[in-house]
Amino acid sequence: MKSIKQFIQTHVDADFQAEDTLPFICHQKAIPKNTLITRYGQTERYAYFLLSGIVKISMLRDDGQERVLEFFFPGSFFSAYTSFLTAEAADVEIEALCDCEVEMISHSDMQQAYKHSLLANKLGRIVAEHYYIRKTNREKDFLTKSATERYTELLTRRPEQQIPVQLTARYLGIEPESLSRIRKMIS
Amino acid sequence: MKSIKQFIQTHVDADFQAEDTLPFICHQKAIPKNTLITRYGQTERYAYFLLSGIVKISMLRDDGQERVLEFFFPGSFFSAYTSFLTAEAADVEIEALCDCEVEMISHSDMQQAYKHSLLANKLGRIVAEHYYIRKTNREKDFLTKSATERYTELLTRRPEQQIPVQLTARYLGIEPESLSRIRKMIS
Repeated sequence: MKSIKQFIQTHVDADFQAEDTLPFICHQKAIPKNTLITRYGQTERYAYFLLSGIVKISMLRDDGQERVLEFFFPGSFFSAYTSFLTAEAADVEIEALCDCEVEMISHSDMQQAYKHSLLANKLGRIVAEHYYIRKTNREKDFLTKSATERYTELLTRRPEQQIPVQLTARYLGIEPESLSRIRKMIS
Repeated sequence: MKSIKQFIQTHVDADFQAEDTLPFICHQKAIPKNTLITRYGQTERYAYFLLSGIVKISMLRDDGQERVLEFFFPGSFFSAYTSFLTAEAADVEIEALCDCEVEMISHSDMQQAYKHSLLANKLGRIVAEHYYIRKTNREKDFLTKSATERYTELLTRRPEQQIPVQLTARYLGIEPESLSRIRKMIS
């Protein structure tokens, strides 16, 4: 199970050791399936790192339909990130799709660490850069790739069996029937 | 004229003084009107800070039409940012819309500074966070706001007279004729 410490070793500082201290307080927590981790309108107070499980981040469109923005898999940070950065009300909702385990850092502990810690700032910078690249790529994918291509890419990130069909469809922006056709075509 | 040092004072570290040394080498440069600062397919080697002038970042759609992604005004960083971060070929183009003055930092100097400098990492983190928020807001605006609202917001950022009508229209994603109607309605 990949932890924040291992994320740091891989992406931030190869010299960081398992026995080194993190520059912020970090709690571990089990989150049961279907828990709403962050609700619409709430101010995000935590940055989470997913140890196990799957979470989804979604948004409500004006017509009341849910649009799935992202699935997060183990080994990545997630959060209602804009709300975490701006302290404004979240316009997204985060839900545990199965039983999850997370490490979590509070906003105030993170801000405290940012004042003096080189490592915390390196980590914060690299995570922000990842988020930016991820958002840009997803925008580009929508402009240039077919639903089939985007579905195949999701499969390479994670066996999709663990995500309900209707959620995968909402992520791809297509009807569940279209997804069924794509799945038949591929298999 | 706002400089990188002043950006740092305002957004990164209030204790930073004008006579303090930046943690990276920074060159100043004049860029004549209509210069292509970064071309499609080029790997971005610089982060720029706009001292004066206006630049536009655009993308080519599959049908060959230009889409304006962003205008940048003095006091902000700009770059083919994904290419700068990933060292992949840029899929955007950056052009000076009028005579511009910039401060510029090379990719290798920035990476060198990131190794040991707390200030460089704070700056890099905060710029990445700004970019993320900006991208998210623009995405949300397209989903939820009318062209008129988005045009009015652009005006609050900068008198639009300095940007040719057809470019403003390409930024708003509307026909130049529609923009003319909006302008008449507002004035």
